[in-house]
Amino acid sequence: MNPEVEFVLNTFAFLLWGALVMWMAAGFTMLESGSVRTKNASVICLKNIGLYSIAGIAFYTIGYNLMYTDVQGLIGKLSLFYSPSAEEVALVEGADNAAAVVAQHDYATMSDWFFQMVFVATAASIVSGALAERVNLWAFFIFTVWLTAIVYPIVGAWTWGGGWLAELGFMDFAGSSIVHGTGGWAALAGVMVVGARMGKFRADGTVKETPPSSVPVVTLGVFILWFGWFGFNVGSQLALGSAGDAIGMAHAAVNTNLAGAAGVLAAIAVARPILRRFDLFAALNGAIAGLVAITAGPDMVNHYWAIIIGAVGGVVCVAAIRLLDMIRVDDVVGAVPAHLFAGIWGTLAVAITNPEADVWIQLLGVVSIGAFVFSVSFLAWKLLETTIGARVSDRVERLGQDVAELGIEAYPEFVLMPEMDDEEA
Amino acid sequence: MNPEVEFVLNTFAFLLWGALVMWMAAGFTMLESGSVRTKNASVICLKNIGLYSIAGIAFYTIGYNLMYTDVQGLIGKLSLFYSPSAEEVALVEGADNAAAVVAQHDYATMSDWFFQMVFVATAASIVSGALAERVNLWAFFIFTVWLTAIVYPIVGAWTWGGGWLAELGFMDFAGSSIVHGTGGWAALAGVMVVGARMGKFRADGTVKETPPSSVPVVTLGVFILWFGWFGFNVGSQLALGSAGDAIGMAHAAVNTNLAGAAGVLAAIAVARPILRRFDLFAALNGAIAGLVAITAGPDMVNHYWAIIIGAVGGVVCVAAIRLLDMIRVDDVVGAVPAHLFAGIWGTLAVAITNPEADVWIQLLGVVSIGAFVFSVSFLAWKLLETTIGARVSDRVERLGQDVAELGIEAYPEFVLMPEMDDEEA
Amino acid sequence: MNPEVEFVLNTFAFLLWGALVMWMAAGFTMLESGSVRTKNASVICLKNIGLYSIAGIAFYTIGYNLMYTDVQGLIGKLSLFYSPSAEEVALVEGADNAAAVVAQHDYATMSDWFFQMVFVATAASIVSGALAERVNLWAFFIFTVWLTAIVYPIVGAWTWGGGWLAELGFMDFAGSSIVHGTGGWAALAGVMVVGARMGKFRADGTVKETPPSSVPVVTLGVFILWFGWFGFNVGSQLALGSAGDAIGMAHAAVNTNLAGAAGVLAAIAVARPILRRFDLFAALNGAIAGLVAITAGPDMVNHYWAIIIGAVGGVVCVAAIRLLDMIRVDDVVGAVPAHLFAGIWGTLAVAITNPEADVWIQLLGVVSIGAFVFSVSFLAWKLLETTIGARVSDRVERLGQDVAELGIEAYPEFVLMPEMDDEEA
Repeated sequence: MNPEVEFVLNTFAFLLWGALVMWMAAGFTMLESGSVRTKNASVICLKNIGLYSIAGIAFYTIGYNLMYTDVQGLIGKLSLFYSPSAEEVALVEGADNAAAVVAQHDYATMSDWFFQMVFVATAASIVSGALAERVNLWAFFIFTVWLTAIVYPIVGAWTWGGGWLAELGFMDFAGSSIVHGTGGWAALAGVMVVGARMGKFRADGTVKETPPSSVPVVTLGVFILWFGWFGFNVGSQLALGSAGDAIGMAHAAVNTNLAGAAGVLAAIAVARPILRRFDLFAALNGAIAGLVAITAGPDMVNHYWAIIIGAVGGVVCVAAIRLLDMIRVDDVVGAVPAHLFAGIWGTLAVAITNPEADVWIQLLGVVSIGAFVFSVSFLAWKLLETTIGARVSDRVERLGQDVAELGIEAYPEFVLMPEMDDEEA
Repeated sequence: MNPEVEFVLNTFAFLLWGALVMWMAAGFTMLESGSVRTKNASVICLKNIGLYSIAGIAFYTIGYNLMYTDVQGLIGKLSLFYSPSAEEVALVEGADNAAAVVAQHDYATMSDWFFQMVFVATAASIVSGALAERVNLWAFFIFTVWLTAIVYPIVGAWTWGGGWLAELGFMDFAGSSIVHGTGGWAALAGVMVVGARMGKFRADGTVKETPPSSVPVVTLGVFILWFGWFGFNVGSQLALGSAGDAIGMAHAAVNTNLAGAAGVLAAIAVARPILRRFDLFAALNGAIAGLVAITAGPDMVNHYWAIIIGAVGGVVCVAAIRLLDMIRVDDVVGAVPAHLFAGIWGTLAVAITNPEADVWIQLLGVVSIGAFVFSVSFLAWKLLETTIGARVSDRVERLGQDVAELGIEAYPEFVLMPEMDDEEA
Repeated sequence: MNPEVEFVLNTFAFLLWGALVMWMAAGFTMLESGSVRTKNASVICLKNIGLYSIAGIAFYTIGYNLMYTDVQGLIGKLSLFYSPSAEEVALVEGADNAAAVVAQHDYATMSDWFFQMVFVATAASIVSGALAERVNLWAFFIFTVWLTAIVYPIVGAWTWGGGWLAELGFMDFAGSSIVHGTGGWAALAGVMVVGARMGKFRADGTVKETPPSSVPVVTLGVFILWFGWFGFNVGSQLALGSAGDAIGMAHAAVNTNLAGAAGVLAAIAVARPILRRFDLFAALNGAIAGLVAITAGPDMVNHYWAIIIGAVGGVVCVAAIRLLDMIRVDDVVGAVPAHLFAGIWGTLAVAITNPEADVWIQLLGVVSIGAFVFSVSFLAWKLLETTIGARVSDRVERLGQDVAELGIEAYPEFVLMPEMDDEEA
């Protein structure tokens, strides 16, 4: 194939699939805003558009270079900003040097940056969902800077950046561990430090269900995520300049869809005997868990494996939701079950479907990413707790963050039921 | 053009336009969830994510092969699963056989599968909308298996699969009849067996309007469908590897948009004198009807015809809504008028705009697809009715499926008006 | 590169990015519908699907030719409809003339039409938002015809069509002034003629805040717009057939995202000391303002400039919102601050980042577009006011347009708080 055609196709694929991944930010926002109580639905909107904005600028400022520029085993280069090459600048300014540009790289420098940037936002979105309804906004935004400028780029340097895990042969095609695991571990650390919402876990060991503000909005969020996941997994082929790349993209699309579908059906199937009814939230979380599970290896050629991997992801997620309730960890949207637990499963499952993967190396990747992200996140949340405070005051939590922190309500004209606290009941 | 470039472009087009068609599943969900009464808005979400998941797995398991593999007039091959070719597998596993792969096919095998799979989900979504607010969830899911694994693939084998209708010259570019007609006939059979919602048709012949839970959500659904329709119609060019294909895609995009727009304006225009006011639901259904109508022939080169075809589609839909009310058929979202009636019009209209089409063959296609789909759907619904029951109990219907079957409400914190039954009024 | 490959890539880019711009219509609808009081949320839906439909047909009928066909300084040709070339028609009908088609143009004729058409709809959407909650629907639709068939095409003829401003060297890559400025000036003229909503500005000089019907829906709208903006700005490269074009698209994607992110953070930062709290609406308007500001020059190669331009856009927008309140101009969604003011800034800022741009020519462009669009829009609104009336009656405004004009409510089953008029309070 003509190298310039290859260059154009690779670049276009990064941009288009990357735009779809950006759209996932809307999915996370809707999922989270619909899942929380009405009194907190607006602050979620601010939190999510804020985190997406912070992630983009932090990754531009230092994150990308830490992750990809001159990675030496553990970490890349600490340097500001990221730019097209001099040859590329010359070309767009009118020079006749396309051949030189194309010889230099297979794609436009900044198209890859764009694709990588939307991934870091996903990791931050996962943290947001788990911590909804009580996290201090300032603390969350500061943590987002930490996560997107430093923590995620270091994990990325180990793996996609070519660092030590990559050298050992760790495989994570689109980031079951690198993205979803990182987000999940950071979320777990956050919920452990910040603590459960008031009244969530009763003294008698039972769990208080909190009403979602809008079930259709949650569902919309999941559909947005599913749609965007095609960008996430298919785009992670990272190239479109050959028949092999195009076939790889096709396989990623097919496996992604089969795994999501299987996650839905498996989660419905296992939740039903427990609850004795259909469980919509199991289905929705099952979709995400199936999608997360396939994310580590959506390039497999035996597509029925995608069904198995997605289905197990759905089951793992339903079980993990129960587990977190039992150990009294309050993760509002089920982010840890769907992203972390299903992501661990998916990362290990690559050893089943990809003969080049080694299960011990996969496990080493899971454990080392987990140990690193969890510990630096835990420390960060502890530091935030002891300085500016990691959670809002009881008064704000009771009143709702919308009114207390934004001065608005999500649905100001609608008459709402008064919330029944256990102590009042 | 270099055959490998052609292969890549064809494949990429399938994947990208296919992802847009997947997004239509969200559109159907929002349209239906916003259209029903609040007490049923959550179960619609489960029904739709469930049907999308079932459709994908059923089509993978046997549907695609029935539709496309070795079709002999009536039906393809009954065999499990679908896979890339051995040469493709070898290529993605590292062999240097791109030339052989490209010589074998014009596109990645699984990219076509992906594009076809999202179409079958659309047919199932149409059934869902018509049957909202009273269909038994189990019955609906079982019917979805029947529709997506067997019924739709057989219709597809007759036509796109190269079977008897294709041999006669039947033309249906993106599926006004094959997809929307199939969904519409199955929906019509369903509503006839399942029956109208309680109290919908009063003894005095008048019709009780049921309040939509959220008008903006319905509107969002229609916009999602319109956006996704570019995938549906433009992608149905099925190739991007030549200037002619690119031009065909451009024409499909232009005609699709003009027809949708004309459907909106025509529906508003005809609904206004009847109601003496602007009618938003006519506009929204008119958009869908215009889009359905153009779907059989969006490749025409005289684009003003798209305006006419879309406008007539909008008028047909408004008239059919009235007709269904008169004959006391309860189709909650107007799926039969918008998809079936406008689809019939669109299929016949191909004979006007495409000199290669024969109106009698088009009519034969409409009638034979209708006779087949309606009868096997009617039988299936009857069978479901007499075994597990096709509709929920009166108690569940009165209470709402959300609380009765899912144990949740769509908007639990909001205060709702008590529903006024006629007997109570 | 093979010219046929170039033709295909250029065409595909127009179609795909154009479809994303179409999706912005949904974003404007959600933003506006969520921002207004519940009593007007449905009529917004009708207004927006109506304007999108009118814009598409008006631009097909005469707008495109006025803008692009044989432009002589001020205006193009007045002729009906727009069509593919005879050679293109021959090709899709089976002729073997691909080489001739490709030699004639770099892209399919109608793919460019499609991409331009979705832009005109954006301009009309901007007007809609500013005038919400009191504009007469008929008047708005008639104005939309005027704007999309005549006014916007004339501005376009001056610039993108190659007319006098283009000849002077005016630069506006994706339309900060040509699209957003035109929409903004037309909106400003509209709000000045139509006047503020009842009770919006109190006699004592204070401003009555009106409650948004749904904050999550507004947020969804902004995310849709951000996503669609990749189509808007990246697609405005207008070609994908070379490495230079691909790089240009990559830069547009990166700068667009950085500017939107910076707009969010800057708007939060400046709004906070004023309000002493986080301001979600500042963040959301800041996103749009940042995106509008970068739209005139998203092709710059020093990406940190995108952060500065977006941030200033966000600040300009927050300040302009205060200004409009002070001069008692009632723009419901902040369309004039976000689209017009940030658009002026962005158009001028091109002189900073692009050495080929001249700040005086940029200013001339801003002023001449403003003078033209404002005056012909003002006249049109005045004419509408004196003939059919530009706003609804007090009774309709008080009751809400949904019930009065559509006969439906947006959320009929929900119990709403009675609106407190000042006189009643």
